[in-house]
Amino acid sequence: MAAKRKRVAAFGEVMMRLQAPGYELLTQANTLHYSFSGTGVNVASALSRFGHEAYLVTRLPDNPLGDAAEAFLRKLGILTSCIERGGAYLGMYFLENGFGARPSRVTYSNRQASSFNTAPDGTYEVDQIAEQIDLIHFCGISLAMNDGVRAQMKALARAVKAKGGTVVFDCNYRPAHWGEGGYALAKPHYEEMLELADIAMMNERDAMLILGMPTAHEGREEQLADLLPQVARQYGINVLAGTHRTVNGDNTHTLRGFHYKHEAFVFSEPRTFSVYDRIGAGDAYASGIVHGELAGFSPEQTVSFAVASAVLAHTISGDTPMSSERDVLRAMTEAAGDVER
Amino acid sequence: MAAKRKRVAAFGEVMMRLQAPGYELLTQANTLHYSFSGTGVNVASALSRFGHEAYLVTRLPDNPLGDAAEAFLRKLGILTSCIERGGAYLGMYFLENGFGARPSRVTYSNRQASSFNTAPDGTYEVDQIAEQIDLIHFCGISLAMNDGVRAQMKALARAVKAKGGTVVFDCNYRPAHWGEGGYALAKPHYEEMLELADIAMMNERDAMLILGMPTAHEGREEQLADLLPQVARQYGINVLAGTHRTVNGDNTHTLRGFHYKHEAFVFSEPRTFSVYDRIGAGDAYASGIVHGELAGFSPEQTVSFAVASAVLAHTISGDTPMSSERDVLRAMTEAAGDVER
Amino acid sequence: MAAKRKRVAAFGEVMMRLQAPGYELLTQANTLHYSFSGTGVNVASALSRFGHEAYLVTRLPDNPLGDAAEAFLRKLGILTSCIERGGAYLGMYFLENGFGARPSRVTYSNRQASSFNTAPDGTYEVDQIAEQIDLIHFCGISLAMNDGVRAQMKALARAVKAKGGTVVFDCNYRPAHWGEGGYALAKPHYEEMLELADIAMMNERDAMLILGMPTAHEGREEQLADLLPQVARQYGINVLAGTHRTVNGDNTHTLRGFHYKHEAFVFSEPRTFSVYDRIGAGDAYASGIVHGELAGFSPEQTVSFAVASAVLAHTISGDTPMSSERDVLRAMTEAAGDVER
Amino acid sequence: MAAKRKRVAAFGEVMMRLQAPGYELLTQANTLHYSFSGTGVNVASALSRFGHEAYLVTRLPDNPLGDAAEAFLRKLGILTSCIERGGAYLGMYFLENGFGARPSRVTYSNRQASSFNTAPDGTYEVDQIAEQIDLIHFCGISLAMNDGVRAQMKALARAVKAKGGTVVFDCNYRPAHWGEGGYALAKPHYEEMLELADIAMMNERDAMLILGMPTAHEGREEQLADLLPQVARQYGINVLAGTHRTVNGDNTHTLRGFHYKHEAFVFSEPRTFSVYDRIGAGDAYASGIVHGELAGFSPEQTVSFAVASAVLAHTISGDTPMSSERDVLRAMTEAAGDVER
Amino acid sequence: MAAKRKRVAAFGEVMMRLQAPGYELLTQANTLHYSFSGTGVNVASALSRFGHEAYLVTRLPDNPLGDAAEAFLRKLGILTSCIERGGAYLGMYFLENGFGARPSRVTYSNRQASSFNTAPDGTYEVDQIAEQIDLIHFCGISLAMNDGVRAQMKALARAVKAKGGTVVFDCNYRPAHWGEGGYALAKPHYEEMLELADIAMMNERDAMLILGMPTAHEGREEQLADLLPQVARQYGINVLAGTHRTVNGDNTHTLRGFHYKHEAFVFSEPRTFSVYDRIGAGDAYASGIVHGELAGFSPEQTVSFAVASAVLAHTISGDTPMSSERDVLRAMTEAAGDVER
Amino acid sequence: MAAKRKRVAAFGEVMMRLQAPGYELLTQANTLHYSFSGTGVNVASALSRFGHEAYLVTRLPDNPLGDAAEAFLRKLGILTSCIERGGAYLGMYFLENGFGARPSRVTYSNRQASSFNTAPDGTYEVDQIAEQIDLIHFCGISLAMNDGVRAQMKALARAVKAKGGTVVFDCNYRPAHWGEGGYALAKPHYEEMLELADIAMMNERDAMLILGMPTAHEGREEQLADLLPQVARQYGINVLAGTHRTVNGDNTHTLRGFHYKHEAFVFSEPRTFSVYDRIGAGDAYASGIVHGELAGFSPEQTVSFAVASAVLAHTISGDTPMSSERDVLRAMTEAAGDVER
Repeated sequence: MAAKRKRVAAFGEVMMRLQAPGYELLTQANTLHYSFSGTGVNVASALSRFGHEAYLVTRLPDNPLGDAAEAFLRKLGILTSCIERGGAYLGMYFLENGFGARPSRVTYSNRQASSFNTAPDGTYEVDQIAEQIDLIHFCGISLAMNDGVRAQMKALARAVKAKGGTVVFDCNYRPAHWGEGGYALAKPHYEEMLELADIAMMNERDAMLILGMPTAHEGREEQLADLLPQVARQYGINVLAGTHRTVNGDNTHTLRGFHYKHEAFVFSEPRTFSVYDRIGAGDAYASGIVHGELAGFSPEQTVSFAVASAVLAHTISGDTPMSSERDVLRAMTEAAGDVER
Repeated sequence: MAAKRKRVAAFGEVMMRLQAPGYELLTQANTLHYSFSGTGVNVASALSRFGHEAYLVTRLPDNPLGDAAEAFLRKLGILTSCIERGGAYLGMYFLENGFGARPSRVTYSNRQASSFNTAPDGTYEVDQIAEQIDLIHFCGISLAMNDGVRAQMKALARAVKAKGGTVVFDCNYRPAHWGEGGYALAKPHYEEMLELADIAMMNERDAMLILGMPTAHEGREEQLADLLPQVARQYGINVLAGTHRTVNGDNTHTLRGFHYKHEAFVFSEPRTFSVYDRIGAGDAYASGIVHGELAGFSPEQTVSFAVASAVLAHTISGDTPMSSERDVLRAMTEAAGDVER
Repeated sequence: MAAKRKRVAAFGEVMMRLQAPGYELLTQANTLHYSFSGTGVNVASALSRFGHEAYLVTRLPDNPLGDAAEAFLRKLGILTSCIERGGAYLGMYFLENGFGARPSRVTYSNRQASSFNTAPDGTYEVDQIAEQIDLIHFCGISLAMNDGVRAQMKALARAVKAKGGTVVFDCNYRPAHWGEGGYALAKPHYEEMLELADIAMMNERDAMLILGMPTAHEGREEQLADLLPQVARQYGINVLAGTHRTVNGDNTHTLRGFHYKHEAFVFSEPRTFSVYDRIGAGDAYASGIVHGELAGFSPEQTVSFAVASAVLAHTISGDTPMSSERDVLRAMTEAAGDVER
Repeated sequence: MAAKRKRVAAFGEVMMRLQAPGYELLTQANTLHYSFSGTGVNVASALSRFGHEAYLVTRLPDNPLGDAAEAFLRKLGILTSCIERGGAYLGMYFLENGFGARPSRVTYSNRQASSFNTAPDGTYEVDQIAEQIDLIHFCGISLAMNDGVRAQMKALARAVKAKGGTVVFDCNYRPAHWGEGGYALAKPHYEEMLELADIAMMNERDAMLILGMPTAHEGREEQLADLLPQVARQYGINVLAGTHRTVNGDNTHTLRGFHYKHEAFVFSEPRTFSVYDRIGAGDAYASGIVHGELAGFSPEQTVSFAVASAVLAHTISGDTPMSSERDVLRAMTEAAGDVER
Repeated sequence: MAAKRKRVAAFGEVMMRLQAPGYELLTQANTLHYSFSGTGVNVASALSRFGHEAYLVTRLPDNPLGDAAEAFLRKLGILTSCIERGGAYLGMYFLENGFGARPSRVTYSNRQASSFNTAPDGTYEVDQIAEQIDLIHFCGISLAMNDGVRAQMKALARAVKAKGGTVVFDCNYRPAHWGEGGYALAKPHYEEMLELADIAMMNERDAMLILGMPTAHEGREEQLADLLPQVARQYGINVLAGTHRTVNGDNTHTLRGFHYKHEAFVFSEPRTFSVYDRIGAGDAYASGIVHGELAGFSPEQTVSFAVASAVLAHTISGDTPMSSERDVLRAMTEAAGDVER
Repeated sequence: MAAKRKRVAAFGEVMMRLQAPGYELLTQANTLHYSFSGTGVNVASALSRFGHEAYLVTRLPDNPLGDAAEAFLRKLGILTSCIERGGAYLGMYFLENGFGARPSRVTYSNRQASSFNTAPDGTYEVDQIAEQIDLIHFCGISLAMNDGVRAQMKALARAVKAKGGTVVFDCNYRPAHWGEGGYALAKPHYEEMLELADIAMMNERDAMLILGMPTAHEGREEQLADLLPQVARQYGINVLAGTHRTVNGDNTHTLRGFHYKHEAFVFSEPRTFSVYDRIGAGDAYASGIVHGELAGFSPEQTVSFAVASAVLAHTISGDTPMSSERDVLRAMTEAAGDVER
């Protein structure tokens, strides 16, 4: 089931994650563990581990924090030749781990001032990137940033599409980033990206809330069955995929993946599993879908691979998926196992 | 539902908690994490987070350990102007975290020699404290210490009552502290405190074992329904409250709160939840009851707030509750949630 | 139920365990926690905590790593007078903790070059050891090492038997160590050890796979009931014991112990429990069986003690059992408990 | 020599200090130690330890980082009733410790966006603060921030002066904050603050570079002797003080303090000492001068106390001085001592 | 130069040392590193590393702290068969590391309540210990504790002397333990111990202050030359030894050892060296003297070995010397060396 | 002074460095800090930071340790396309940091079994590597390993030379690796490498001991002046360079660099500096020489750059130089500086 090695890119901001130890609050602890992540980082790392050449397209400050971020990305196996250096700041977020009834808490630094979010016009070598890659991944978080980022994102998507590359767009709507009245603000930009996308990650809520599509149905799956075919048709999207997640009371989640292509839905079995680190698991799912498509998996294989990729990502420290294709393939078939020795 | 800010105090010993890392034993580890706690600390911290001015009445040694303790209390938001400095030692306990079938283990240092437990007559500014506060909290652990502490405790309770303040007493009977034949030794002191109390934390076992009250019933709830009204009547107590806890096999506990006032019982729904740090959760419950009374919540709101406060305290590192009123209000209505970002 | 203090020994390699922190991978972390373990270490430590004088028979390098290992064994309460120093290397393994669907992963250093595995003929004072002890424990992992180790092992077993001591053999077959076609290679050596053993740890799979014994039954318990009596008869073994383990999906395992002696089987109740550190729990079970036999427990007591010993070992950091006889006796009767204070 | 307890305030930004462990670089480490500091924090903490009531006047974000900062300030003994909450961000800096020939390296986050630097007009209760305090401290770093901060600073200084309080101004010119042509930009603001100041921390370089005062002398001490009396006269300043620091090659520094008052200079003996944490030591010196003046020390005592305070601050982890008046008095007379036990 | 292996014992309290990390104060840190030490522990550990069988005579509580202490002693190589278990508490001290001008600071827990200091009459198997050992070490810290400890100490010294063993006494006067007027209180007890001692560690200050011996000389060495021969004669002591220490300003100390025997003094060269952990270095010196005497070194060798042992002890983490005889022999001749690889 | 970016390679083993924390011994600690280094790693990392494309030619095991090593190398900025994966083991060494009189101690694992040292014939793509690079670096440690490694090394050197590339050879003789009679064994291999070398790192001791060259001189510099010109002539070497190091008593070293080219010697000023981490500093010097030659620096600049590079390497955690060209250029001219902020 080994895929041909492709050249893929992801566009997005690198965030410094600063995490309080164990289950301590920021008012209790005095140390933080740091790493560097972001949707683009997570997707590029996952695709690199699935056997592809994975580039990140981003901008980092030319200071010791930028150096540390770039070194960390290289460690993850991400190719850094499309990373620009300039500007002064790195986006950051502080994470306090929740436990049971107490949710995890994220506090952002001033992200708008980051090197990525202040990148001037012409920062990225759009044509050269479009030339060298087979597929590029974008996400709704970048779309929420500001006009500059949106323009760069769309230009890049258009250039890749023009060169025959595949455009992936993950809707990933974050209410906090768009603010009040955000759906209306977001809609035209989402529509533009969906027009450009070959593969999109979304679910029925995105269709209803962002795109404003009406449905007479009440159940999530009925809404999904009603709306996604309309989205695919309207925006000319080849593959639509996503998950339904249930947060259970006992530190476990349940995940069910879906995949819509060629007018047919495929659903994975629901999987219930213990959660160690939830952030970034959606990116692991998206990466699994992308890999399935690049590797020519059947829809059933693709969705099952993507769910296993997401399940494993919940068991890994940090935002960024670390599992190889072999790890994911094994997790598709095996339940919890004894020590490997 | 915001309460009017009151001035409250708690009387009790500050203990240094020295905790082995993770699930290691003292014979395995070589580092300890330390913090400063105690029932009074926990209650004052919780009430401070619920919006009140919270004083601790205690005595700390005038040495670097006392300095560290006082700094820690300030960090918790506790007002330290009623803390006396003198004596030579701080009470300590070593904690080895249990896991599943292996219970947590607590080893005390020589607590009787502590600054608190050797405080001479006249240590505390009883009248001034009574003048400045609306409510004071005492607990059965202090009552178990020695005659000196008992005398200070009763004098303070009497003075507060005389000034029209509210006296809260948490029975909190610890068999290890009273030793053999402890119930008989404890009874007169408990009776004295209950006479002074407006609000008392206790359950049917306290009534039976400490107060020696007979009951013909066998179930916990029947015993409770039989005995608490008698206690309230006999000692003239306005509010009696407490919990029934079940320790389940899978690192979860189930808690059901009760509240008796104006001859009526209210019970919370039983809540089952994962436990991260069990110590101090009883104090979070008591603080929730006190806050409900201070804020004029209905009995239903009060008991539900107190249970949510206790549930959150089980998810917090260390003995001391760290949740704000807003955190507790949300936890009353929400189940486990996804990351807040 | 206190046992008479016996002099026992265990033969086996000391491994340095180097463990990544929390749930990090080796590519993520930059620190390791180290300890020293091995089946012999685990059994000697457990028997020492059950009240016996416990010696380890092994060989350690004469360098700072060997010094650290020997100091660690002394800390565990193991007597080190039968430990030889020489050779140049210590066996090591790196442990990355699994979580849920992601299994723990063990990576070995070059174990064949270790001081233990390169110990020349005549390294150990076989006669003197045989003279001074009442019982000796061997395990199938040592048997898998090389001809030198196998010869030392058999010589020691023979000498102890000749002096009237008890020989314990734990089959503990590790496919990775024997390689392909391993069962055929292993069989004659296992048979030789079983001939010498008074007590053997094994289950139906060992009988079928290593000894090649056929059975018409399909269920594990039927196979066990069919095969173990044959093994006992054929090799003249007094006690056969082992466990059936089920790995559940939610970080819990279920364990059921069995014990066959005097032509009678005894089974423990199945126990389900949360797992913190799985490695070494089998040695805790074996140690419990050995202690039951040394102490003259009834078969029911023995198997229940052994299962409780194993359950506790899953809750302890590191490979090596740390529970005293008193701890195990309590865990036989109690479910999960509240804090001990 | 105990001073009468005064009410003092310091105005300034709270920065989160995030420090790489040991001598690691940000590209090497994965944890950071954090604390909260800033010139105002350092001065308020030192003065609190010297026995005064010390307030900080600042603005913190109303989020978990702001909570953590405020708790940390309380722990330091700083009174927080003049701290406003609002805005969204906390200033941060990352510190990589230098060693020998490799200098320490500081990387800032986007400080201009901090709650302090974006505080709107009318944020602080200027009149109330002026009413309640005896002395207020300002520093040139705040002056470098932006027009808003400068306006608040001057308004506060004027109000305190109007109420008869003492105004302290530490020149503390940071070239990086003012940028190119900074001296010219800074001059009018420095002049305005010096006009308001009763006590100023400065040296001959400040006079030459910021105030543009010419001198014919070449040696530092000659320049000082020439210029400071002019400054005192011109701006009507009562006390001028500062240090001459030499960075030696072997991780030691040499410090000589000076103090000019009533037309007379006093110099301390030069002190050479090992440096553990250099940041914040200047604030310890300034605090020593302020305390000497508040306590009515002789100029000789004041400068010697201030130097000892600075020397101790170099031996303390973190930016913020932690030594009590007693500690400093002892360090004035004693050389390095053996363990205190 | 290898010594014949002797059986030696040391009598003294085991203290738990709880050390703040790096150069942090207790008010700054939240973790502590712990170990177990004490003069007896240090001497027994050092003599064990010099090749002797080393027993500690002490009493530890029968709780998890006592277990941890005993395991730690075994790890150090100390034989624990003369350790009694009983009583409830372990002595503790908290250590904040000084740096340069800031001295290290020690805060004790309530030591008088410790298992050692409350050991009842008849706790130790005095006759059996006296029978089995060649030499026993006592120290002035134990002598300062209370009448019970003093009686046990003297009884043990008498019994060993009666059996022909060697008695070593280290004066080690600690003003804080004897309190005001301490020299007068201490004198009779010191005299009693010196009467029993064959080898004593002391210097001219001990002779003057404790024994009240007058001298007309002013220089340390002249006083020494005057007084020690008198002490040796008066109390019939075979060997008197000690050091003169100078604490230099730059984190270095200078040490000069002396040794008086058969009416002749020997002095070592003064050695200046960087200090990492000063506590316990005096015990390393005493152990070196004892080893020199046991091994039949010449006085020159003995004092040089003892000084090298002390110098190395200053470079070791924790109180307890960890250097082997080979390490010390090398440090006698070599200056600072490059990496050993 | 910016150099043209060249393509360089280094050949050598990757070692896992496992370091005890602070100044603890392996018998005291329970954690280790790990990183991956080796002469080739150090040189490639340094040259990458000086602006070159730097490849490492080595072989790593195909297991989680090999993955961690490769990720670490990427993080250092080393290009990994010439790294082969295969074999089973990684070389390791354990480091206990010395302090003052106590030297650092290195304990190796079984290095001969490593993937690098067991790489079969034909492992490396010799021709392709020779084609793609401008310069390759070898070192005497690899030469000490075994015949296989020696053959690969020489083949690679010959291929690079044949393609016109520059061959650098660092003599780096380690007595422990060659064993007794090592100089005689080593000589022919050293001669072969020197014949191939364009640039060699060596000093007078290498010439005397390895090459057996006689000299009538006694001083180090006279020997150097006598022997190096002979070596250059005899083996046809363009540049010879090295250092004279003095280990001082106070944790400082003194280093003087020399450089011989075109029949002329250049010496740097001797530099004395505090040492934080000594390992790898020789590789930093060699890298500085190589960079000077690649960049066309004058001999004076080259040797001064190399010494500054070495001095900085002593101030960096871990074996591997982390300083950029800019950092080194600054350290050439500046003494110890104050904080950069």
